[in-house]
Amino acid sequence: MAPSRGPIGIFDSGVGGLTVVRRLLELCPGHPMVYFGDTARVPYGTKSPETIQRYAVENTEFLLQFEPSLIVVACNSVSALALDPVRETAGQIPVFGVIEPGAELAASLTKNKRVGVIGTSATVSSGAYDRAILARDPAIHVYSKACPLFVPFAEEGLFDHRATELIAKEYLHSLLVHDIDTLVLGCTHYPLLKEVIQKTVGHKVTIVDSGQAVAAQIHRHFGDSPSQDAVLPDIYVSDLPSRFQRTAELFLGMQLNEPKKASVSSEAVGDKKQKRS
Amino acid sequence: MAPSRGPIGIFDSGVGGLTVVRRLLELCPGHPMVYFGDTARVPYGTKSPETIQRYAVENTEFLLQFEPSLIVVACNSVSALALDPVRETAGQIPVFGVIEPGAELAASLTKNKRVGVIGTSATVSSGAYDRAILARDPAIHVYSKACPLFVPFAEEGLFDHRATELIAKEYLHSLLVHDIDTLVLGCTHYPLLKEVIQKTVGHKVTIVDSGQAVAAQIHRHFGDSPSQDAVLPDIYVSDLPSRFQRTAELFLGMQLNEPKKASVSSEAVGDKKQKRS
Repeated sequence: MAPSRGPIGIFDSGVGGLTVVRRLLELCPGHPMVYFGDTARVPYGTKSPETIQRYAVENTEFLLQFEPSLIVVACNSVSALALDPVRETAGQIPVFGVIEPGAELAASLTKNKRVGVIGTSATVSSGAYDRAILARDPAIHVYSKACPLFVPFAEEGLFDHRATELIAKEYLHSLLVHDIDTLVLGCTHYPLLKEVIQKTVGHKVTIVDSGQAVAAQIHRHFGDSPSQDAVLPDIYVSDLPSRFQRTAELFLGMQLNEPKKASVSSEAVGDKKQKRS
Repeated sequence: MAPSRGPIGIFDSGVGGLTVVRRLLELCPGHPMVYFGDTARVPYGTKSPETIQRYAVENTEFLLQFEPSLIVVACNSVSALALDPVRETAGQIPVFGVIEPGAELAASLTKNKRVGVIGTSATVSSGAYDRAILARDPAIHVYSKACPLFVPFAEEGLFDHRATELIAKEYLHSLLVHDIDTLVLGCTHYPLLKEVIQKTVGHKVTIVDSGQAVAAQIHRHFGDSPSQDAVLPDIYVSDLPSRFQRTAELFLGMQLNEPKKASVSSEAVGDKKQKRS
């Protein structure tokens, strides 16, 4: 198979990136996809840049064996902190992160030039959204807030729980005082909490889903029509806990092909390199 | 240094085990300690038994280089699922898990023979507490409940937040209907939420902290007096995110020696084995 006809390779720290797959299935349904979720080492968003970079390179190595036509980094923390190492590892294969498309969409949508960004501690500390939005329009004010409890709330399925509402109110208050009119969901888990977030910020604030933004960009990259039959993605994970299937289907919004277990430990990457050389 | 005079070696998936160190500092203050927190791969409690076992063996290998006098598995998920692999790896060195001491204390304290156990999904699914309590008294009824959001709540410092109260009420209701008089905190994160848990279950329910129970057992093992000056533990972690120090001090209840970063990846363990042989 020539590389340009290969599947779309997608990776994330865990199940969050399946919200991006969901958008890709809507916009580019005819393309085969290979998804890798690093469920043995999830979450990334509370870890150091150095560790996130190491994991990102190992995940990219794993996807390369499928000779993908392009790689989607469906994880904001990796997109913010490790896109360059992923690109170096991927060589000629195009790499799409979620930060740039999300920032572009937010910059084009804001009218009062006041944009809020929410994400994990790693993404927010990196300042990657701030830089990407300001590069498009230096007049925009960016206000960001780490929302670490949103990931466990989404994974536990507490989409409209009173506790989620209370925490959302607390996290988002610090952005609302700045009169933002646009809010970027800078974590692929957050689309599952979109309703409670929208309810908290009010309907005058436009919510930007960075996963939806990257799916739109990839659709333009392929330039094909979305009228083909959907091909369900092949799913690989580094760990398969008992509740994985249920959580994954929550994120994908549909039944999924049975996930396969794969190893991406340093040792396994070393083995693969040997085989490749 | 002869093995019997070596430090107490303690490991956990992350910072949770520092609540056990805190108890050891109270009961065995004169003993040097080496703590390893696997912060690059935390949390374990949502992962599969197979992955938890692999990580536990790597962590044990790491501690062995300090020639510890004994090893404390300060993690309920590992104690529940991987104590045998840890013991095989540790050879002649005594290994203390947190399940047995917690189960023993609970079995001795319950009057109405109705005991509740809370922990991570991995610990609760394993049924390890049920087996350990029933082995001591087959007449006891054990009711258990996974409380996955308690770990992020504890790590975010939401000890008395309304959201924590709401979630606690929901989790613990299913135990209270069984009229338990004893509740085991089967996760080393949970002592930080003891107040909200006690408030939710009421003061007729006795709370058993499994970390405190293992510290008492180790104190009996050494048989020495607690009148010595406390020696602060040496702390090693597999990742050092920016907020580590703050969170760790929350769990330890005091300032800690500067943590050192250490690698326990499969590759590093391989290297160490080579050096040892």
